[in-house]
Amino acid sequence: MNPSLTNTICAIATAPGGAIGVVRMSGPEAIPIACRICKNIKATTPSRKAILSPILSSDTEGGEQYLDEAVVTLFRAPHSYTGEDCVEFSCHGSSYILNKLLELLIREGARMARPGEYTQRAFLNGKMDLSQAEAVADLIESRNKATHQLAISQLRGGISNELSRLREQLLHLTSLLELELDFSDHEDLEFADRGELLILAKNIDSHLNKLVRSFETGRALKQGIPVAIAGKTNVGKSTLLNHLLKDERAIVSDVHGTTRDTIEDVMEIHGVQFRFIDTAGFRQTTDAVEQIGIQRSLDAIEKARIVLWIIDQEPASEDIKEILQATKDKRLIIIQNKIDKNIDIRFPLPDLREHPRCTYIKIAAKHDRHIDQLEEAIYEAADLNTFSEQDIVVTNVRHYEAFIKAEECIQRVLKGMDERLSGDLLAEELRMTLNYLGEITGGAITPDEVLGNIFKNFCVGK
Amino acid sequence: MNPSLTNTICAIATAPGGAIGVVRMSGPEAIPIACRICKNIKATTPSRKAILSPILSSDTEGGEQYLDEAVVTLFRAPHSYTGEDCVEFSCHGSSYILNKLLELLIREGARMARPGEYTQRAFLNGKMDLSQAEAVADLIESRNKATHQLAISQLRGGISNELSRLREQLLHLTSLLELELDFSDHEDLEFADRGELLILAKNIDSHLNKLVRSFETGRALKQGIPVAIAGKTNVGKSTLLNHLLKDERAIVSDVHGTTRDTIEDVMEIHGVQFRFIDTAGFRQTTDAVEQIGIQRSLDAIEKARIVLWIIDQEPASEDIKEILQATKDKRLIIIQNKIDKNIDIRFPLPDLREHPRCTYIKIAAKHDRHIDQLEEAIYEAADLNTFSEQDIVVTNVRHYEAFIKAEECIQRVLKGMDERLSGDLLAEELRMTLNYLGEITGGAITPDEVLGNIFKNFCVGK
Repeated sequence: MNPSLTNTICAIATAPGGAIGVVRMSGPEAIPIACRICKNIKATTPSRKAILSPILSSDTEGGEQYLDEAVVTLFRAPHSYTGEDCVEFSCHGSSYILNKLLELLIREGARMARPGEYTQRAFLNGKMDLSQAEAVADLIESRNKATHQLAISQLRGGISNELSRLREQLLHLTSLLELELDFSDHEDLEFADRGELLILAKNIDSHLNKLVRSFETGRALKQGIPVAIAGKTNVGKSTLLNHLLKDERAIVSDVHGTTRDTIEDVMEIHGVQFRFIDTAGFRQTTDAVEQIGIQRSLDAIEKARIVLWIIDQEPASEDIKEILQATKDKRLIIIQNKIDKNIDIRFPLPDLREHPRCTYIKIAAKHDRHIDQLEEAIYEAADLNTFSEQDIVVTNVRHYEAFIKAEECIQRVLKGMDERLSGDLLAEELRMTLNYLGEITGGAITPDEVLGNIFKNFCVGK
Repeated sequence: MNPSLTNTICAIATAPGGAIGVVRMSGPEAIPIACRICKNIKATTPSRKAILSPILSSDTEGGEQYLDEAVVTLFRAPHSYTGEDCVEFSCHGSSYILNKLLELLIREGARMARPGEYTQRAFLNGKMDLSQAEAVADLIESRNKATHQLAISQLRGGISNELSRLREQLLHLTSLLELELDFSDHEDLEFADRGELLILAKNIDSHLNKLVRSFETGRALKQGIPVAIAGKTNVGKSTLLNHLLKDERAIVSDVHGTTRDTIEDVMEIHGVQFRFIDTAGFRQTTDAVEQIGIQRSLDAIEKARIVLWIIDQEPASEDIKEILQATKDKRLIIIQNKIDKNIDIRFPLPDLREHPRCTYIKIAAKHDRHIDQLEEAIYEAADLNTFSEQDIVVTNVRHYEAFIKAEECIQRVLKGMDERLSGDLLAEELRMTLNYLGEITGGAITPDEVLGNIFKNFCVGK
């Protein structure tokens, strides 16, 4: 057994201040400790049965004190979250009671759990792989439909299944290569196999490439899709932002632990979070300021996936050129605001015809006209439909890096085939690919340092 | 059945932000709803068994979505908190998941629970009496040993048992009175009974009186025992406060929902909370200010149970007289600060010899000398040992008022016996006494208005 698993850990698993507070304990001493402090819990108490029991705390003078009447549930190994013997105490949500219970458990031999230690034990005991363990933290942090879906798909083994399919293909490729090695004196056989090998390797490569590319979307979904807002002052940027965000501010400010600057300009469309980056605006009055303004706008646009350009009159052709240059690889939405003022701007703008990904929309932000259409346009521009719900989207930097390394190996395999490298060199690359993919689920031995990094950002009690 | 009990209620029972979030549902539809949304829950699932189950939410397009993998427990009536069919969902603590689950339950036919509605149902279904229901809220709010003990004793039926003993005595008294009425032509019999009646009534009265008197302590324990600090400026009041409170500030500021002004000067000694009220100080320089200062000090002292008077030199005899007059019914602790400065003040102070409840102590707050002795002296002065742990301490205003009214009735009974009032008038008073006591546990029918007042201050989910 892993030596870190020999002691019994405990933690408060709920936030302070509710009607109910839950304390969890896991490890070899969990059930004996529960038997000692819970009047109605015996060694013979059935597993997974919720039992109402007084919790008794012996005070320093040896007297017994009622700490609480709690619902206590034993989860005997291996049928528990951690795979060890676990006990869950569902108490009255008083911070005094919960802290006293924790003190009592520690006095009885348990120790405080470290952040993520329950999930780490679940991983070490084979209850879940590493990518599923990481999904637990993502799931707890999920604040909207998109991040929730990504996390739950990963928790349910989405990445793990994908990896086992890739693994199969890689093993098949390796076995074909080994076959080739065994018959290396038959030149014609080699030739035939190499054709099949190439198809297989290209398949794996395109598969890996799709996963690598999905990370851009995955990261955007997790952090909010960045949207830059460009446009001169007085075109109605603030009004538009206020009308876009009005219902969202309340929801967002409800979210625990979000910092104020990320709260400010965030909204959800169809369960996906969008993050608005206001730009300093193009073309200010004085030259010196102008340059700074333009640079800031360019920086904001660089970070964005979508650019909203708000205008209220026919734009100057140099403005159009600047926008075109700055946004040519971005999705651009050109918004004519204040349509109630009857200024006629003909779309598409002449110089922007060559922009590859440009949309036009006319609104009156102040009067809430066509704001819903704008929202749809923004959601469309996020290009999320290129991934179907069944697709695996990589959201984790650690996974992303492993997929990149794996793809590099496969690229070398493809190059090696082209250069007719010997089978054993190719087989070595394939083994490395398998290793990189193995890191994601932690199938092989995972160094403590990597585990430490993964679990340190968890909350205590999970 | 009470018409309010025919619908099914649901609520998030934990505070936002933890590793685990619990959603509770109670009512006739609770189990059918759980069966519809939980893959592994069936009508035949055993009661009180913790089942790991996916929660499925059908989206608007009719597709099924995994909302979470939760531990779901059914509690079939009457063996549940509310006495109704209950379901508890222990989910990953994401506010998105918990709110979506709540939405789902409401879509399936449940409605949001009102504050305290679970406990109200527990009361209406006879799972606990009204004083126990009130203890649930007190228990959740308990922040220290003293308030925790009071609440748990009440939850375990402390008040209820006391009341049933009182009820027995009252019924015995009533039956003796009725016996007297039956034999009202036998004058000698009446006389004998009246003696016994008087002893019984006096017993009940002293019992009620003790409960009424306990409220002062109960309220002080619940709100913090008020301690006024008197003393001129520069005698070291702030230093003393800082040294007294230094360890406590952190603990207190940890408490959820405590307002800043109550946080400031609160500390715990042996698990009891003390609340410090700083006075403006006696004897300021100019006459006009002096008067205001004295009045403020007197007000603070009036509110206090204990007065600390800090001096650093021999006090003027008029100061001593003022203190004596202002504090004669209070516990007074006279503290000589700065003992490191070798100013010799002889205790007891001459003019304070006649103070009935005065203690002396010498400290050097700045050097942390004898602060622990001072803490002991403050705890002693709180006079909490006049109540043993088995004693019932009234902490609830509603109970206090009922006990006062009951005692007034008994006083009238005693007076009536003295005035040889007829037995039926006395019996009427006894019936009223029983009614008042019945209000406390809600034995008779309790008006909705009273119930509303009791439960409105609960948190949602309890």
